[in-house]
Amino acid sequence: MIHSIEVRSSAQVEMIEVTAEVRRALRQSGVQSGIAVVFAAHTTAAVTINENADPDVVRDMTMELNKIVPLNDGYRHSEGNSAAHIKSSLVGASETLIIENGEPLLGTWQGIYFCEFDGPRRRKMLVKVIEG
Amino acid sequence: MIHSIEVRSSAQVEMIEVTAEVRRALRQSGVQSGIAVVFAAHTTAAVTINENADPDVVRDMTMELNKIVPLNDGYRHSEGNSAAHIKSSLVGASETLIIENGEPLLGTWQGIYFCEFDGPRRRKMLVKVIEG
Amino acid sequence: MIHSIEVRSSAQVEMIEVTAEVRRALRQSGVQSGIAVVFAAHTTAAVTINENADPDVVRDMTMELNKIVPLNDGYRHSEGNSAAHIKSSLVGASETLIIENGEPLLGTWQGIYFCEFDGPRRRKMLVKVIEG
Repeated sequence: MIHSIEVRSSAQVEMIEVTAEVRRALRQSGVQSGIAVVFAAHTTAAVTINENADPDVVRDMTMELNKIVPLNDGYRHSEGNSAAHIKSSLVGASETLIIENGEPLLGTWQGIYFCEFDGPRRRKMLVKVIEG
Repeated sequence: MIHSIEVRSSAQVEMIEVTAEVRRALRQSGVQSGIAVVFAAHTTAAVTINENADPDVVRDMTMELNKIVPLNDGYRHSEGNSAAHIKSSLVGASETLIIENGEPLLGTWQGIYFCEFDGPRRRKMLVKVIEG
Repeated sequence: MIHSIEVRSSAQVEMIEVTAEVRRALRQSGVQSGIAVVFAAHTTAAVTINENADPDVVRDMTMELNKIVPLNDGYRHSEGNSAAHIKSSLVGASETLIIENGEPLLGTWQGIYFCEFDGPRRRKMLVKVIEG
């Protein structure tokens, strides 16, 4: 069974916390012990794990990612969103979580984020749970 | 069973699409539902997922990665390929795919790429399928 | 069963090889064939795979990461460690290894590293093995 999570972004570059949605998918799977793959089915988005306490952390992250990979930098791709494609490969399309007692094993400050790099858009994340 | 895919690069920095080879390995495994780990067994290469429609996307990506991590930047490693090692860790040695009906669940434009950062060389990718 | 590995860092930015500790966890699991997820339960750390032969490689990598994501760059997060959070998402919180004959399938020069980006600290890595 594969769980699909819909995400709606409201900015061009935005990190949206999806920890609650992922926890819900794990509960629906009924799996107590194993791993879960959280996958962004898009080439201009990504999935990452980072701090969910102070919103300035994700604000600093999107600001710095825009400095590291400028929106315009002599790219040739005619759609004009090459920076989004590059950020997607740097952050990565998926995260793999460890599950214990039906919950993801996350550190105190860790939250799961869908990273929008070419929004605003309606997006799809997939969650696959493997028992073990 | 572990599937080995040989990749031959023809440039120093190059992204080579391997989606067809990964699909073939999944078919050979006979697994209909589960996950697959695609792993680059090299410290100056990586695996990523990105757009496979317009070749300018991977061209922009290799150009920008060479800007972010310049080939020469005061590195000490005597082999002279530190930039390749750093790109390898930024992009990452593996990707994990979700499998349904024997096929990887990829978005419309997503292709799987072997990233060569210190070519040209003959390289090896491993694919391991877990049923579940 | 989840294996916990304690890591003590001694610098602010440091890559600590943990290949031997991960191999030990795999042996303790008794699993001969499958995959293993190595996960850093922290938002200012990461896990990566890179060369463990010449120590200059990890020295060049930490130097270059500090150039790409400067320690101070107009960040707002009041703890002052935004650069560490950003590096964590660029390198990634986990690596997934392929296991054969009870050992991780690594290339000749590949070692597993815990990446400290906000040390020195006492840290925790988790290893989860899935048979298959």
